[in-house]
Amino acid sequence: MELEPALFQENERLARATDERRYVEIGELAFERGGSIASVTVAYECWGELSKSKDNAVLICHALTGDSHAVGWWDRIVGPGKPVDTEKLFVICTNCLGGCQGTTGPSSPAPDGSTYGSRFPEITLGDTVEAMRRALRGIGVERLYAAAGGSMGGMQILEWTVRYPGEIEKAWITAACAAHSAMQIGFNEAQRQAVLRDPKWRGGDYPADDPPANGLSVSRMIAHLLFLSEASLAQKFGRGRQDRAPENAATDVPSTWHPRQFQVESYLNYQGDKFTKRFDAGSFVCLTKAMNAWECASLGGSTTEYLFTSFASDWLYPPHQSEQLHEMALAAGCESRWVNVELPYGHDAFLLDAEHQGRAVREFLGT
Amino acid sequence: MELEPALFQENERLARATDERRYVEIGELAFERGGSIASVTVAYECWGELSKSKDNAVLICHALTGDSHAVGWWDRIVGPGKPVDTEKLFVICTNCLGGCQGTTGPSSPAPDGSTYGSRFPEITLGDTVEAMRRALRGIGVERLYAAAGGSMGGMQILEWTVRYPGEIEKAWITAACAAHSAMQIGFNEAQRQAVLRDPKWRGGDYPADDPPANGLSVSRMIAHLLFLSEASLAQKFGRGRQDRAPENAATDVPSTWHPRQFQVESYLNYQGDKFTKRFDAGSFVCLTKAMNAWECASLGGSTTEYLFTSFASDWLYPPHQSEQLHEMALAAGCESRWVNVELPYGHDAFLLDAEHQGRAVREFLGT
Repeated sequence: MELEPALFQENERLARATDERRYVEIGELAFERGGSIASVTVAYECWGELSKSKDNAVLICHALTGDSHAVGWWDRIVGPGKPVDTEKLFVICTNCLGGCQGTTGPSSPAPDGSTYGSRFPEITLGDTVEAMRRALRGIGVERLYAAAGGSMGGMQILEWTVRYPGEIEKAWITAACAAHSAMQIGFNEAQRQAVLRDPKWRGGDYPADDPPANGLSVSRMIAHLLFLSEASLAQKFGRGRQDRAPENAATDVPSTWHPRQFQVESYLNYQGDKFTKRFDAGSFVCLTKAMNAWECASLGGSTTEYLFTSFASDWLYPPHQSEQLHEMALAAGCESRWVNVELPYGHDAFLLDAEHQGRAVREFLGT
Repeated sequence: MELEPALFQENERLARATDERRYVEIGELAFERGGSIASVTVAYECWGELSKSKDNAVLICHALTGDSHAVGWWDRIVGPGKPVDTEKLFVICTNCLGGCQGTTGPSSPAPDGSTYGSRFPEITLGDTVEAMRRALRGIGVERLYAAAGGSMGGMQILEWTVRYPGEIEKAWITAACAAHSAMQIGFNEAQRQAVLRDPKWRGGDYPADDPPANGLSVSRMIAHLLFLSEASLAQKFGRGRQDRAPENAATDVPSTWHPRQFQVESYLNYQGDKFTKRFDAGSFVCLTKAMNAWECASLGGSTTEYLFTSFASDWLYPPHQSEQLHEMALAAGCESRWVNVELPYGHDAFLLDAEHQGRAVREFLGT
């Protein structure tokens, strides 16, 4: 298996994805912590066909900075003949409420024509579930054979199975947790402060063509390091020097005094700057806050059958968090299985690993 | 053992330390990568008495953001009756070249009266060793019974033992490495970019009363998380909420839309902002670059006896890096011992642990 992290292959994918997006209006949404938006749009994509008995619908929930194009960012998992087999299943993936890839979020235009920015209500993962659920009903799906997601996506599915027991028959949750630990909260805070302390943040009300790009870029550099592992970074970059001057820098960083010299330095800057072209700082701030606040104390009442997967080298969402979820599922009387995979790719492995996850998922879904 | 990280207890210590500092002028220093400074000052402190035969001198080398006050930041290790026993040994600790606690660095005044800023030459860890070595000669010490240091301090001692064989009889190196890995380079780069992309950085030429405090604060938040461990953060903060609004924020961060709510969030912001009061952004940039660039390919030629210590939970300077150093020392024909300590405190353990390190150090130094 090659080591190019799937999270980072987003160029042409996004161009493609935009064309395939559909949209569903879900009307007014009242937010759990107060506030409402009169008209919410949810972007989605789908693949395969819904069976006559409507028993083959599968929802994919993306991670923090993902989008509806699951056959792109999860192309080793979702597609014809893949573990989530679009030849057998009707697969739907929505862009998350609060996001910036077609679904209403802080960067969307408010009724007055300017972006919501700081007027966007504080969001919870429960709110994101409500929006997804209404979107599915809007396209004719009321029960899900399965739901699958990693990281934030997995947390949303857990929330759904507790909030609406009986609606999701099988849930595959990978590289997720029942609640962010102090370390996870802390890393989100450090990344968020990089954005909030960029003078261009302007309290969340920045023009679309002049966002807090430097802060968002720094936050992405931190995130990239957290997604990977010491071993995968060593294998990919080692102490390799770059043989030419940095280019493509989105921002005017002085490089005369202390030019970058290592490949990993160039790579991080390049990825950080690229990220600012596709992701909104306001979405980053509100979704990381929602993730930190979310907590699943118990799976009591759930009737879902769970599959939890985790990766030994994932120190951002370490395996013991998936083990805890598995134990919570058993304690709630649910069927549950936990598979911990020995791969060196860190958190990113949940996007990269088709072999070990895939085997467990095929067995779990009968595909 | 209590869990308050020693790195963070710096308030009164600094006030004390300033009073006890002495200074030695080491004349003109030509830097390895070019450039020179006509008159370099080294700040130092010392404890105990040099024996008549001058055979009991011990040098302490501080980590990246440390200073000469070793009896403060390493008070569990250095002092009367402590493993580095100031009743038996003559202990000296200098502030590092390029630092900002008394020794010449980017924030020092140049001959023209304004700070060096971007005019400060690119620095290597070899340059820091040259400055320390000349400072020691200036105060009458030409041979060291021992040298001790963690993290960057350990890297400097390694450099010294290879560069000047025979000058250091025993070296205790804790939580260090032979060269930064891609992960270590990358985290330094993300932290450095937080500073370089702060508009107040101004290419390194900022006024002393208006530094890039937001960038430096964000970089410190990242560092704090890297110094600790998942377990120590969980024990210290868990998901504890704060019961009052944030205060003491050095900077004007909007908190209306998304106020901080977790204790770990407040703590990181408080520590980040406090750090900007005692540390210079230019020192941070030039020393992290020097650490990344440094590489010890072999200990060949060294006649030093080594003690390496590391901590199982230190994922910033993981134990296998100390094991590698131990193997390099043996390969060079040196006496060497490696002790890996099972403690949950992360990289910070090298400052906190007097018990396990201490036992090995007492045996090693005969104290």
